[in-house]
Amino acid sequence: MTTDALPRPKARAPRGFQDRRADALIAERAILTAVSRVYESYGFEALDTGAMEYADALGKFLPDADRPNEGVFALQDDDEQWMALRYDLTAPLARFAAENWDSLPKPFRRYAFGPVWRNEKPGPGRYREFIQCDADTVGSDRPEADAEIIAMAVEGYAAAGLPRDAYSLKINSRKLLNGLLTAAGVTNDYQKLAVLRAVDKLDRLGAEGVTALLGAGRKDDSGAFTKGAGISSAAIDSVLAFVEGGRSTRTATLDRLSQVIGGSEEGDQGLGELARIGAALSGLGVGEDQALFDPSIVRGLEYYTGAVYEADISLPAVGERGEPVRFGSIGGGGRYDDLVARFTGQRTPATGFSFGVSRLAAALAAAGAQAEKVRGPVVVLALDAALMGEYFAIAGELRAAGLAAEVYLGGSGMRAQMKYADRRLSPAAVILGGDELAAGTVTIKDLDLGRALASTVADNQAWREGRPGQITAPRGDLVAQVRRIVEAAG
Amino acid sequence: MTTDALPRPKARAPRGFQDRRADALIAERAILTAVSRVYESYGFEALDTGAMEYADALGKFLPDADRPNEGVFALQDDDEQWMALRYDLTAPLARFAAENWDSLPKPFRRYAFGPVWRNEKPGPGRYREFIQCDADTVGSDRPEADAEIIAMAVEGYAAAGLPRDAYSLKINSRKLLNGLLTAAGVTNDYQKLAVLRAVDKLDRLGAEGVTALLGAGRKDDSGAFTKGAGISSAAIDSVLAFVEGGRSTRTATLDRLSQVIGGSEEGDQGLGELARIGAALSGLGVGEDQALFDPSIVRGLEYYTGAVYEADISLPAVGERGEPVRFGSIGGGGRYDDLVARFTGQRTPATGFSFGVSRLAAALAAAGAQAEKVRGPVVVLALDAALMGEYFAIAGELRAAGLAAEVYLGGSGMRAQMKYADRRLSPAAVILGGDELAAGTVTIKDLDLGRALASTVADNQAWREGRPGQITAPRGDLVAQVRRIVEAAG
Repeated sequence: MTTDALPRPKARAPRGFQDRRADALIAERAILTAVSRVYESYGFEALDTGAMEYADALGKFLPDADRPNEGVFALQDDDEQWMALRYDLTAPLARFAAENWDSLPKPFRRYAFGPVWRNEKPGPGRYREFIQCDADTVGSDRPEADAEIIAMAVEGYAAAGLPRDAYSLKINSRKLLNGLLTAAGVTNDYQKLAVLRAVDKLDRLGAEGVTALLGAGRKDDSGAFTKGAGISSAAIDSVLAFVEGGRSTRTATLDRLSQVIGGSEEGDQGLGELARIGAALSGLGVGEDQALFDPSIVRGLEYYTGAVYEADISLPAVGERGEPVRFGSIGGGGRYDDLVARFTGQRTPATGFSFGVSRLAAALAAAGAQAEKVRGPVVVLALDAALMGEYFAIAGELRAAGLAAEVYLGGSGMRAQMKYADRRLSPAAVILGGDELAAGTVTIKDLDLGRALASTVADNQAWREGRPGQITAPRGDLVAQVRRIVEAAG
Repeated sequence: MTTDALPRPKARAPRGFQDRRADALIAERAILTAVSRVYESYGFEALDTGAMEYADALGKFLPDADRPNEGVFALQDDDEQWMALRYDLTAPLARFAAENWDSLPKPFRRYAFGPVWRNEKPGPGRYREFIQCDADTVGSDRPEADAEIIAMAVEGYAAAGLPRDAYSLKINSRKLLNGLLTAAGVTNDYQKLAVLRAVDKLDRLGAEGVTALLGAGRKDDSGAFTKGAGISSAAIDSVLAFVEGGRSTRTATLDRLSQVIGGSEEGDQGLGELARIGAALSGLGVGEDQALFDPSIVRGLEYYTGAVYEADISLPAVGERGEPVRFGSIGGGGRYDDLVARFTGQRTPATGFSFGVSRLAAALAAAGAQAEKVRGPVVVLALDAALMGEYFAIAGELRAAGLAAEVYLGGSGMRAQMKYADRRLSPAAVILGGDELAAGTVTIKDLDLGRALASTVADNQAWREGRPGQITAPRGDLVAQVRRIVEAAG
């Protein structure tokens, strides 16, 4: 192949797609391992569905996805069927459960992790590909199933290392607001959805903005007008009293909400389910103030039918330049009793929670709980082409002793090789030239010590003269000497 | 949301996409963990690029991908740029290396694993999404870098549990055949590619079929005609002598090939590089008969420029119905010195190996080295709604003791609950009703023992009468009794 004649493509990742290097990956894998262990301890089995689903199977449940294929990455297959990259792990689970329902143990409890894709406008901290880690119970309508999912979320955050006071887990039920709206005479599906979207903006717009969006509409700072839900002012008052009904314990919130919600059948049903969720949470050891009922929680996905859950960071977070950062949700979920029925026509109640792994990793870093820097291997310098066999033998000995090691394989000289080991954050470099070979010795540099000394002006001279951090040892002591340095480096 | 009015989509995964359940995933994760550990021990760092790349960055290197976007899943972004799902992990690495070259330690050594996608016709055992696990060294033209990559492949297969005699690792160099063709007067790029594709079919078509494809062309059994490379009969003879030059040790093959290849500069260079790879392999402890030179190896991807490697299963494999199965390659790679230069214009030599993880898992299963069946959790039966709190407490105690446990959360009776535990392959079920509660006891069923006894007609009666495999213990002994049963179940 000759490449000279071709125009050169520009090397760049697609907009909103990230390249993640070792430090980020190690942190992410630690989260996935910790959370998966919690899920497995609760009897959830691993499942992996493919990255793509047929578009009709995925459905259109993304917030604000009104146009066909909006919000997803879609393409047409050879046989004309539209396929799309999954936008979450729940829709594929519903498809899988519907396809295999007869042969599955029921309830079917599965966990899954992997990337999901949203074809949205990327921005700072907002990617079009991100990692989720979900657990779902399909085939149980017991509120205890919701409680268990919430308890696993709490346990999962703890296992991942997130301090209990760094986030709050909030629970609501779609049935409450639905019941309230029915009692207030709002029965139009479009209006209900508009109310949901207005309430979802409480955090950002405050009560005044939400009031406008519940009524005639709202003009934002840019002058753009959003049409409102157009519900009566009495209904607006009810909605606002409802969304502001959160208290500092589950019991107190339930008491308050039972006063606000005017005895509709659906609202009472929702309250009854929350009461059972609350009781089961207490039984599962989740404190009254650790997972709260919060009527302002909406969750964007449209497929939820009952309880919804959301975990929000409560840490004050700062960005790279010290500016305050809003993390948003680090996880959430809910009950979706109709998603499997879309395929089968048979009601199949289900509930689940999804960890936003990338955001949780960012939150852990902000909470100071991030992983150590990934250390490089011991680097065996390649100083003499005739000794390559000996260099490989040294690296092999170190690996056999459980120490990561490599022979430098670039084409540069000693100074560049040392710089390479330094950039890899290697704990040690091994030097073997003709002199050492003849004497039956090796020279080992303690790179952490060298870095520490080199960074102190006063000691720099001493370092140059006394060459601390470098020892020459008999060849037979190589592994022991390197191990000593690696263990000191931690 | 009302679903009744909508047409029901059919629940099915896209053609060629797999749902993988716990047994398959556990086996796959074991491979990824084992191979990643080998890569890390050699100083390779983890990298994850996104699932998609711009189509121009991916390039067109798939075998037989002559039409635009053929072989890949491509779509157009909002800004009109074409994107595609990666078809391997090498092309994204080349893009990443080109994009970040100035800031990377050089040589840059990275490993990566994850799904790749090929938009090909699916078939039995042939998927459009599969898992690869790669290591690559970018920025080293030393043949020792190739040798190290090969040594890691050998070590990786061993770490994954593949017996040494279950596969063979074969090494070739594109430079040998190129040199031979140049010496034989074949210099046209199209003809060279046609020769490569013909040689690649040696396994399937034999020498006669390949001879036809090297010459005028070949008509297959269906009557379809494939145009040949159209090289001279003397050149055909040389090519055949070359591809049949493999011997049972690296040294013997090199001796034979140096006789066949008629002194072209490129051929001699290829032989020299293979000699250095062979020497380094021996230094790295890879036996003469463990990784062989084999001139018939081609590798389909067009971006290779020098050494190529391929691991083929040598096990006799049988399918589900006992029929013989051809596994094909379980891994491969090679040197691609021009792939980064496509972006930068600067030659950046690189080499790597890719484990075909899904096929390796299948090969391990065929070799009898597959993982144990995944066991379900201890199931606490839910027999009395008033006791749910107690059931959750029991499950919590078991989990706190490190034993996976769940409360049954479906709506069925005792028989269905026992069947559920059986289908989950649970080691034990815990039974607590009003009687046990009053007496301060729990009943524990040893499900493995029950299964073993139930499968023996003679013992069936004894099992019914004596109820072995079921004990009633004081509530305080629960964890110890369950642990005993779980540990016996293994």
